[in-house]
Amino acid sequence: MAAWTHDTLVAGVRAGDRRALARAITLIENADPLAYEIVRELYPETGRSYVVGMTGPPGVGKSSLLSALIRHVRGEGASAGVISVDPSSPFTRGALLGDRIRLADHFLDPAVFIRSMGTRGHLGGLAEATLQAALVLDAAGKDIVFIETVGTGQSEIGIVTIADTVVLVLMPGSGDSIQALKAGIMEIPDVIAVNKCDHPAAKTMVNEVSSILALDPDRSWRPPILLTEAVRGEGIAELWEKVGEHQQHLEESGLLAGRRAEHLAGEVFAVASARAKTHLERTVAGNEELARLLEAVQRRELDPLTAVREIMEKVFHIYGDPNGTDTR
Amino acid sequence: MAAWTHDTLVAGVRAGDRRALARAITLIENADPLAYEIVRELYPETGRSYVVGMTGPPGVGKSSLLSALIRHVRGEGASAGVISVDPSSPFTRGALLGDRIRLADHFLDPAVFIRSMGTRGHLGGLAEATLQAALVLDAAGKDIVFIETVGTGQSEIGIVTIADTVVLVLMPGSGDSIQALKAGIMEIPDVIAVNKCDHPAAKTMVNEVSSILALDPDRSWRPPILLTEAVRGEGIAELWEKVGEHQQHLEESGLLAGRRAEHLAGEVFAVASARAKTHLERTVAGNEELARLLEAVQRRELDPLTAVREIMEKVFHIYGDPNGTDTR
Repeated sequence: MAAWTHDTLVAGVRAGDRRALARAITLIENADPLAYEIVRELYPETGRSYVVGMTGPPGVGKSSLLSALIRHVRGEGASAGVISVDPSSPFTRGALLGDRIRLADHFLDPAVFIRSMGTRGHLGGLAEATLQAALVLDAAGKDIVFIETVGTGQSEIGIVTIADTVVLVLMPGSGDSIQALKAGIMEIPDVIAVNKCDHPAAKTMVNEVSSILALDPDRSWRPPILLTEAVRGEGIAELWEKVGEHQQHLEESGLLAGRRAEHLAGEVFAVASARAKTHLERTVAGNEELARLLEAVQRRELDPLTAVREIMEKVFHIYGDPNGTDTR
Repeated sequence: MAAWTHDTLVAGVRAGDRRALARAITLIENADPLAYEIVRELYPETGRSYVVGMTGPPGVGKSSLLSALIRHVRGEGASAGVISVDPSSPFTRGALLGDRIRLADHFLDPAVFIRSMGTRGHLGGLAEATLQAALVLDAAGKDIVFIETVGTGQSEIGIVTIADTVVLVLMPGSGDSIQALKAGIMEIPDVIAVNKCDHPAAKTMVNEVSSILALDPDRSWRPPILLTEAVRGEGIAELWEKVGEHQQHLEESGLLAGRRAEHLAGEVFAVASARAKTHLERTVAGNEELARLLEAVQRRELDPLTAVREIMEKVFHIYGDPNGTDTR
């Protein structure tokens, strides 16, 4: 195969060519300068896909539900791109392979493009890679872009913040999620699916989630709670209908543009912060003077915040009061 | 009451005076320059406390367990400082009040100092405030410093990383935690307590956790799993014995010093990163040129990574390839 060039890649992505998409996303993962050039060129053409985030704890059946949703939207004639973000641990490989198998039904469908991304090995950070990959799928003309991620902490939720609609998938009996939702650790999603609805505790869970949502009555959108059974395809049409209603709500209330603008600004901040952090770690690692500072902290000779102040000056040229009161 | 001065606060903290401790931690929370001066002066005297982190999902009975552990260590004649880090949500106030009530038994004990910290309102970031508060309690001569936090995501675990021993508290039937542990989302703790051990699923949970730990046989320390019932005080002595065994393991293997050095370096990085992020947000907020950049991104005229590159140059004076390959 001839090597891809900037022009053939851009044309290939625009045409929705699978190999071009695969190559572009690999370049994004490798933080290749070519990836940056391609996304820069394609960016003005983006914003047409509807982006749906799916999140929830491991083991609740997110991949099965995603597979069923893809089948559903394909039945409606829509094309789909999927970015599936996996936590990176040697422990997970088996489970992840299982997840990929659940999505394999769609591998031969030319209107569906599925890509997994691990949480490590992204030089520019995972938020950055996910954003860029989503933009590529958007530019490729996918009607729906799904971003799937595992976990219910702030960091996992952070990955789906670029979504227009966020679906939280729960399973009856998984009490931690309920507690996390209640404690406000988990951001309130737009649509909630209680999967494996045959479980005897399914209705109890719906009631619990419902009572948590009732604590926050001021929202203009009250997140609906759906019962689904992904493997048998139950509740999938209803779930997708609710996603559509949320989209309609955002569009009719004029909130969609504002939400997207806010998400893009948030992503720019997140990527810049991640870069600053990487820059910091690399600078300290390669700098003897800064390494000596850390050693002095470890010997309890220099307090941590004084070390931070010196690092901020030397690495970022930021001067000021060490505890930040000057910027209050 | 006369106003605290630098000298009276330092002396008060050294003497373990409760009002001095309370005042010092309030100053830390307010990022007051005086707090920085005090910790800087006291820092060489720190490193004597043994720091125990307690984490786990909401609702598993962490506060009851912590209360029982405090009672236990007090029975052994040790003094204790407690920093209880709460997620900040209007939804949680009731639950948090309940948590505080569970710790109220110890409020009149002069050898116990308990302080709650919310996740918002810390100008310097929560990791920074937690570290500084722990150092103050250390300097005050507390034998044991407990740091309690809610949640099982990376960000919640991050708060307890300064601990010498991390105890994960689980509850039978809370399947999400098991899944998160399995998926490697949750770092492996040093000691695991399965609380509410009367629950019919308690033994099943011990087996499940045990089989997950068996997947990682290479660790020099195999985390023990304890059954506890905090309200009735069952398993508390055994849990504390395991914390002691972990401490002994770290000391005898020579790992304790390395672990503390690593944690301190990690904290310095975390605080510096948090400051860089705050500096970024404040600079962009007050800068018309940078605000215009964000607007161009939102209008799809300028791609996010080009905006990031310009921000890195203008805010941090960091130049280089926008996607970071130059620093590979």
